[in-house]
Amino acid sequence: MFFASDNAGPVHPEVLRALSAANDGYAKGYGAEVIMDRVRAKVREVFEAPEAAVYLVATGTAANSLLLATMTKPWETVFCAPMSHINEDECNAPEFFTGGAKLTLVPATNAKVTPDALRRAVLAEESRGVHGPQRGPVSVTQATEKGTVYSLVELHALAAVTQDYGLKVHMDGARFTNALVRLGCSPAEMTWKAGVDAVSFGGTKNGLMGVEAAVIFDPALAWEFELRRKRGAHLFSKHRYLSAQMDAYLTDGLWLDMAKSANAASDRVVAGLRAAGAEIVWEPEANLVFARLPRRVHQRLMAAGAVYYLWDGEVDAGDPDEMLMGRFVCDWSMSDAAIDAFLAVLAQV
Amino acid sequence: MFFASDNAGPVHPEVLRALSAANDGYAKGYGAEVIMDRVRAKVREVFEAPEAAVYLVATGTAANSLLLATMTKPWETVFCAPMSHINEDECNAPEFFTGGAKLTLVPATNAKVTPDALRRAVLAEESRGVHGPQRGPVSVTQATEKGTVYSLVELHALAAVTQDYGLKVHMDGARFTNALVRLGCSPAEMTWKAGVDAVSFGGTKNGLMGVEAAVIFDPALAWEFELRRKRGAHLFSKHRYLSAQMDAYLTDGLWLDMAKSANAASDRVVAGLRAAGAEIVWEPEANLVFARLPRRVHQRLMAAGAVYYLWDGEVDAGDPDEMLMGRFVCDWSMSDAAIDAFLAVLAQV
Amino acid sequence: MFFASDNAGPVHPEVLRALSAANDGYAKGYGAEVIMDRVRAKVREVFEAPEAAVYLVATGTAANSLLLATMTKPWETVFCAPMSHINEDECNAPEFFTGGAKLTLVPATNAKVTPDALRRAVLAEESRGVHGPQRGPVSVTQATEKGTVYSLVELHALAAVTQDYGLKVHMDGARFTNALVRLGCSPAEMTWKAGVDAVSFGGTKNGLMGVEAAVIFDPALAWEFELRRKRGAHLFSKHRYLSAQMDAYLTDGLWLDMAKSANAASDRVVAGLRAAGAEIVWEPEANLVFARLPRRVHQRLMAAGAVYYLWDGEVDAGDPDEMLMGRFVCDWSMSDAAIDAFLAVLAQV
Amino acid sequence: MFFASDNAGPVHPEVLRALSAANDGYAKGYGAEVIMDRVRAKVREVFEAPEAAVYLVATGTAANSLLLATMTKPWETVFCAPMSHINEDECNAPEFFTGGAKLTLVPATNAKVTPDALRRAVLAEESRGVHGPQRGPVSVTQATEKGTVYSLVELHALAAVTQDYGLKVHMDGARFTNALVRLGCSPAEMTWKAGVDAVSFGGTKNGLMGVEAAVIFDPALAWEFELRRKRGAHLFSKHRYLSAQMDAYLTDGLWLDMAKSANAASDRVVAGLRAAGAEIVWEPEANLVFARLPRRVHQRLMAAGAVYYLWDGEVDAGDPDEMLMGRFVCDWSMSDAAIDAFLAVLAQV
Repeated sequence: MFFASDNAGPVHPEVLRALSAANDGYAKGYGAEVIMDRVRAKVREVFEAPEAAVYLVATGTAANSLLLATMTKPWETVFCAPMSHINEDECNAPEFFTGGAKLTLVPATNAKVTPDALRRAVLAEESRGVHGPQRGPVSVTQATEKGTVYSLVELHALAAVTQDYGLKVHMDGARFTNALVRLGCSPAEMTWKAGVDAVSFGGTKNGLMGVEAAVIFDPALAWEFELRRKRGAHLFSKHRYLSAQMDAYLTDGLWLDMAKSANAASDRVVAGLRAAGAEIVWEPEANLVFARLPRRVHQRLMAAGAVYYLWDGEVDAGDPDEMLMGRFVCDWSMSDAAIDAFLAVLAQV
Repeated sequence: MFFASDNAGPVHPEVLRALSAANDGYAKGYGAEVIMDRVRAKVREVFEAPEAAVYLVATGTAANSLLLATMTKPWETVFCAPMSHINEDECNAPEFFTGGAKLTLVPATNAKVTPDALRRAVLAEESRGVHGPQRGPVSVTQATEKGTVYSLVELHALAAVTQDYGLKVHMDGARFTNALVRLGCSPAEMTWKAGVDAVSFGGTKNGLMGVEAAVIFDPALAWEFELRRKRGAHLFSKHRYLSAQMDAYLTDGLWLDMAKSANAASDRVVAGLRAAGAEIVWEPEANLVFARLPRRVHQRLMAAGAVYYLWDGEVDAGDPDEMLMGRFVCDWSMSDAAIDAFLAVLAQV
Repeated sequence: MFFASDNAGPVHPEVLRALSAANDGYAKGYGAEVIMDRVRAKVREVFEAPEAAVYLVATGTAANSLLLATMTKPWETVFCAPMSHINEDECNAPEFFTGGAKLTLVPATNAKVTPDALRRAVLAEESRGVHGPQRGPVSVTQATEKGTVYSLVELHALAAVTQDYGLKVHMDGARFTNALVRLGCSPAEMTWKAGVDAVSFGGTKNGLMGVEAAVIFDPALAWEFELRRKRGAHLFSKHRYLSAQMDAYLTDGLWLDMAKSANAASDRVVAGLRAAGAEIVWEPEANLVFARLPRRVHQRLMAAGAVYYLWDGEVDAGDPDEMLMGRFVCDWSMSDAAIDAFLAVLAQV
Repeated sequence: MFFASDNAGPVHPEVLRALSAANDGYAKGYGAEVIMDRVRAKVREVFEAPEAAVYLVATGTAANSLLLATMTKPWETVFCAPMSHINEDECNAPEFFTGGAKLTLVPATNAKVTPDALRRAVLAEESRGVHGPQRGPVSVTQATEKGTVYSLVELHALAAVTQDYGLKVHMDGARFTNALVRLGCSPAEMTWKAGVDAVSFGGTKNGLMGVEAAVIFDPALAWEFELRRKRGAHLFSKHRYLSAQMDAYLTDGLWLDMAKSANAASDRVVAGLRAAGAEIVWEPEANLVFARLPRRVHQRLMAAGAVYYLWDGEVDAGDPDEMLMGRFVCDWSMSDAAIDAFLAVLAQV
């Protein structure tokens, strides 16, 4: 009954097998190894982007920060939702890697930036010449940190705004695949066909040890990204152990299967929460859900062994009927038995 | 006959086994996992430093840059040898992570900073008030990038200078263990007992996939390091896969055994090179050697399958008798057979 | 009828005289000149702060950014109002000088940060360990960019919050004296006695050519500020021409007289606007006022020669009855005749 | 007998007059004032560069750092002489403004970078892909910090190297005019006709209060420079007081006259030093000279009231016959009487 985070789960056995297979004598490093050639080709094929620049790093914050730094001048501002990972959970890494750019927080609806709010935020940065920050890229998270998913229509509506002002679009895809399989569209449709210029294509939350691909659809930015990666200390010498993970990920649909498992598990949790009368805070469309339950219910769940975070209070002390928001995340490895057990406790309360 | 780099070799099978063992269900991340508690205790025991702050990152540049940033103000300068990795091979990562500090290059003898040269360099930065850069830490590499090793006497002599001026000392220990087993001393003797304040304790070049421990003997700097690590995007969510590697490394002396193997292999190569009349450029004391041989000898070696880098010329074109410097590196996995083959070719020329 | 900005006016003749007087042969520079000794003593006396560190720079952005950089770590966030100059009008200078810190925008009432909003913002940054930005200082502007003034009671109420969380307080005092003479209190009461740790004590908007004093009440931060000033290229070699201006400013109450003149002029403008039925947007308490008038009134005023900025529309095109917000600023040199003329036009419309 | 620095002298009376004249009612600021239009035109005329971007800042370090930042990526290295102001006397300002670029010190002859040394330094940065710093611009100082002057032939020889590698050239012209009048050439000949891309055209050391023009011959870099200037807090609101100074400077050849005066004064000092048997360290070609004299002579000179810096020792304590290097600088205001008095003392010893 572990619902605390999708980066607390194990890696898929195929990934371990790939690492063992890669551990074969000497190999070039720094991304020049043969496996990386294969990975690059696979990513380009997956994204239907034969020219895309493809790089691997080990953390989502690295992928986001390096991409944003490559897309943003230090005197610009990045438009993003207040709850975006780049704003809340990276300890100012984007500010660090960009050399001191700003983040402009765009009010979000259902945790998603809306075209109207974006346009207002962009217009508000227009009129002060050198005095104000200059307009930089827009960063969207797909799926969002609150478990919602931008539809293709929504992405296109945002693109209409960014194109009006010539702004680039970055997609934080830490849970890219969870969104993708929910939408049932292609990676190309969810990215460059919808105006996205660069994407952090996450693997860590979806069954890898620690690998994210930075995919840049305009290869003109590739060399700068490479220099920023090296200078940010994110270029691995024994790079084959990154590429082997991504290679396994993209083999035989493993990435899709894991995301589908996580989403399906989450759907069961959501159904159980709804049945128990929980208040669902954001529309759950990926592999995580935020739900409000009375403290006494949280106490029962946790006493029974459920592990998850409360967002706005302590489980122990306070009014038993006070509603507290919990976050429930399912990773690829979530077992039916664990969900069954969780739902059983829920059903009792 | 692969002598190109000690970060092109495989990881030790015990490390793979440790990764598999660690891949067991859910675990806390970000260094809060149980394995990291064990690693922390082991590193402290190894260094006889029960208070030391111990952190893991995945690249040597990250360990160096984050430690230097924690020890250096942006208006200070780091004293180091011209051939130090932080100067030549990190694409300005130290300047990036420190927020724009400078590196002052101290002329080196046998690739090592000498006390006299250090004192002169320190004195040269003393007399301009706010105008010049301020004196920051000294960074030494042990073993050096040229394969030499500071003796304990040499380290103490440097410490005498740094203590005169109140300067901290950073040790880039990408090949820490190769130096350690050569000196036959303890890690404490080679670090804090010799005036070293923080060390990048490398594992990647010595049989791990990509793990370096940043060890800080003054725990007052720990929290700043943690924030810098996170902000530099070097904090791993699935951190257990770093700690599992380091755990295996420090179990049953694996780290020492691998370094001894690499050094012994290198010793055989050195002996063969000397016997073949090569000019040894820097005194080979770790697991790498720089040797000058005529171009035609390099051509023969490479034609026979030897892989290594030439430092100052092209193998193909030019006077066959021109002396060119090659770098020959042995990693832990270097086989006797490969060395035998290499020495056989050498002996023929 | 020039109401566009208080940094578009002339400098006071006494300031020019002081520059001429200072132009006497050779003098030490970089703040070591005799005049700076006098200035330092005067500022300390004015602030009743005999230990305060006092430095001069030439722009308000420099004073703000250098002080904030001295008070803020790169991984921290500065709490400030959305309309603060540091957020809107410095092209990310605070982000630059701090090395990539963040600004957290605290919703403002009457352009002022309130204790409740501040506490909420501070609490929202508390719970994510190394993941989120860390709490940094609070920056308040006195008088605010919208012409309002924090009362001493309001400043003390903010201090109660900052003390609860151990946060430092920076005051952007670009219009410090305008606020001071309005409140009728002492500089000490408006700063360190109300919990302010450092203040940008502005002169440029109040009759100087370009001088702001950075006043730091904790002298332990002095040396770092000096290094940051030099490194930011804000240390003047011929520093006497800065100190001479500040010396004249603080002689015979010139600074107070100029601020009183500006405020009195502004009061007359406000009265005229009110009489003309204008909607006053923020309570005008310093030397600037934001007022909404129909477009046709703006057209008449500008046609008559009034110069000022519209905040939310164009004067030329649009519905004549649409209400547009103008900003009217009076500097120390505003003549009665100019105001008479302005009020006469206003009275006609 | 004040020879300590050319930034310790007074400003020319014409400059004060220009400031008074500019102090006339309201004026646009931030460089949009009428005077700046005139200055821009004059600078372009002086440099025969009708397209050049021309900006004013108040310190030489600002001009250098902002220009270098506009010309250098954070992962590049700037090639310069060890004694260059940007290396020795700016407290890492170039590293700060560039966002962490490096300076590569090119050994200098007579304080000047030579083509051979430059080529060697450039070649040494070529072979490590993303690992090493990338090649950035070359920065030369004209006249140098040691009082020597690059001839046009020397500048062209450097340009031949920079063109081979596509490197830009920055000229630190803190003493630009002293070099110019010595060479007797045109500003165009000394800059863009000799391969210089941008120049810090100094006024502060040559009779202004604190104004340097940043002149960029490629207008494509203009907007970035403007943003960097604002963000570096170097854009003046009351900008007319900078432009008025530069306007006076470029009127009726005042800038040339002041530099000629300073150089002529320096020539007399040099002749006196030579006659007294001093060892001249670098060939004196501008308005400063470094000369070695016995300590007892320095003692006599200083006792008689001469003010200047010793570079390598203390005047008070030590062997009276020990040779110590003094730096003697003449500014535009140096009087014949002062030099006569100095030479008289020299002649006696």
